[in-house]
Amino acid sequence: MTMYVCRKFATYFVALLLFAGAQINDIPAAETLKTCSTFPLGLASYTLRKFDIDNTLAMCKRAGLTHICIKDFHLPLTATDEECAAFAKKCRDQGIIPHGVGPITLNTEQDIDNVLRYAKACGVKLIVAVPKPEILSLLDEKLKGTDFIIAIHNHGPEDKKYATPDDIMEKIETLSPQIGLCLDVGHTERAAKDAVDAIKKYPNRVHDIHWKDISKKEAKGTTVICGRGVLDLPAYLAELEKIGYTGVLAFEYEADADDPLPGLMESIGYTRGIQKMMPK
Amino acid sequence: MTMYVCRKFATYFVALLLFAGAQINDIPAAETLKTCSTFPLGLASYTLRKFDIDNTLAMCKRAGLTHICIKDFHLPLTATDEECAAFAKKCRDQGIIPHGVGPITLNTEQDIDNVLRYAKACGVKLIVAVPKPEILSLLDEKLKGTDFIIAIHNHGPEDKKYATPDDIMEKIETLSPQIGLCLDVGHTERAAKDAVDAIKKYPNRVHDIHWKDISKKEAKGTTVICGRGVLDLPAYLAELEKIGYTGVLAFEYEADADDPLPGLMESIGYTRGIQKMMPK
Repeated sequence: MTMYVCRKFATYFVALLLFAGAQINDIPAAETLKTCSTFPLGLASYTLRKFDIDNTLAMCKRAGLTHICIKDFHLPLTATDEECAAFAKKCRDQGIIPHGVGPITLNTEQDIDNVLRYAKACGVKLIVAVPKPEILSLLDEKLKGTDFIIAIHNHGPEDKKYATPDDIMEKIETLSPQIGLCLDVGHTERAAKDAVDAIKKYPNRVHDIHWKDISKKEAKGTTVICGRGVLDLPAYLAELEKIGYTGVLAFEYEADADDPLPGLMESIGYTRGIQKMMPK
Repeated sequence: MTMYVCRKFATYFVALLLFAGAQINDIPAAETLKTCSTFPLGLASYTLRKFDIDNTLAMCKRAGLTHICIKDFHLPLTATDEECAAFAKKCRDQGIIPHGVGPITLNTEQDIDNVLRYAKACGVKLIVAVPKPEILSLLDEKLKGTDFIIAIHNHGPEDKKYATPDDIMEKIETLSPQIGLCLDVGHTERAAKDAVDAIKKYPNRVHDIHWKDISKKEAKGTTVICGRGVLDLPAYLAELEKIGYTGVLAFEYEADADDPLPGLMESIGYTRGIQKMMPK
């Protein structure tokens, strides 16, 4: 299998061999690694939480998205292995690659075991998660010998556990680099932290990105269409290029829940416009 | 009245004094001149031809457009002065500035007289038009002493009269610079001409822009969402900046007639992304 290995994952590979002794064959799935310099655009499926999976996939196709991170609205965590496989096949048949699942809350060992089963059955390696801090060591143990990647989602100032990327890193820095961040750029800046700094500080731990814009860099900021808010999206893209980020930009457009497609597509257009103009 | 005068309109002013002896007070309307370096985004209302004006204005607002060029689907050419004024007021009341009317076919003297009446009653100076070549001199005569601007629309290879900007300029180069181009970047490239060249060659005659992307630079190319086609939109923007274009970028998104908003908004987003990244 030919695989394009970027700097970050080369670093991973070595780090994992050194620290975890794990056998890493293909992190992440090769199909998510289109190139190292233009990130594939995907959907954090929370965006389309009011739509069933058929409509969701139709909208992804219309919006030109190639990836989807599956939220349990679309595939319950209780889905059987067969249901998960059928669901993932349905996505792939529409040309949309499931690149992850989540965000998913993990409170117990059972939750961990189930999410690993669920992700495996869906054929994805990336799990966006919100694990109770007390079970992080157990999670780390369970990951040994697997090629799953856990991306912990920072949820902004209201979140007691994981308000910021720093809050997450504080709790996981001694754990395997298989555990890292689902960096939500909006919630990061709502918590008065600079998302560029987070990318810079934790280059090997940025496993997923929730991509959005917000109205204000303060707690009460809300999601707006990309380009209409206050976030410096070009700076984030530049920094992600710099660290050799190889994941997906997952659009999480939380506004207009009943009719999100126009705002989602303007957000995608804006991002594509920036990408087009990024220095090569 | 404070007015920001760009190079192009300074040139106009002199040219018109020299060649036409016309009294030019404020070409174009000051409110269209937001700045000389970031163009206001507007709608060529053909895009929303299947929607009434209330829905059209609602969509313009949602898409963040500030200007509209009124096509007769939305306001028939037979509208009385009072109806035109009420229509224009309705747009302005919604925060959308009518910056032009058209495209409108002009075959007779009566057509010319009527369109000047219609435009005046709407409070706009810009008329996007397709005048029969035989009446161009008459049109030129009628413009003397007025501050109307005629922007002739190039309609691509199928158009016997005005396939390309060159075809138009050939017929109007001896006429007042009040008559110029509504440069449709898509139709220009469908006719195998470079829209950058057209902007470069006729800097004082680019009075309006139909902004879009197309699938192929050949006759059978069709409108696609900006950024998904083959046009070098950043190059057009750069050249428009260079000549000091002071008009509007009027989105003419001809696809998805029954549900154009998502594609229109992605086009707008893409354009905003490019604008954001243009060197200042």
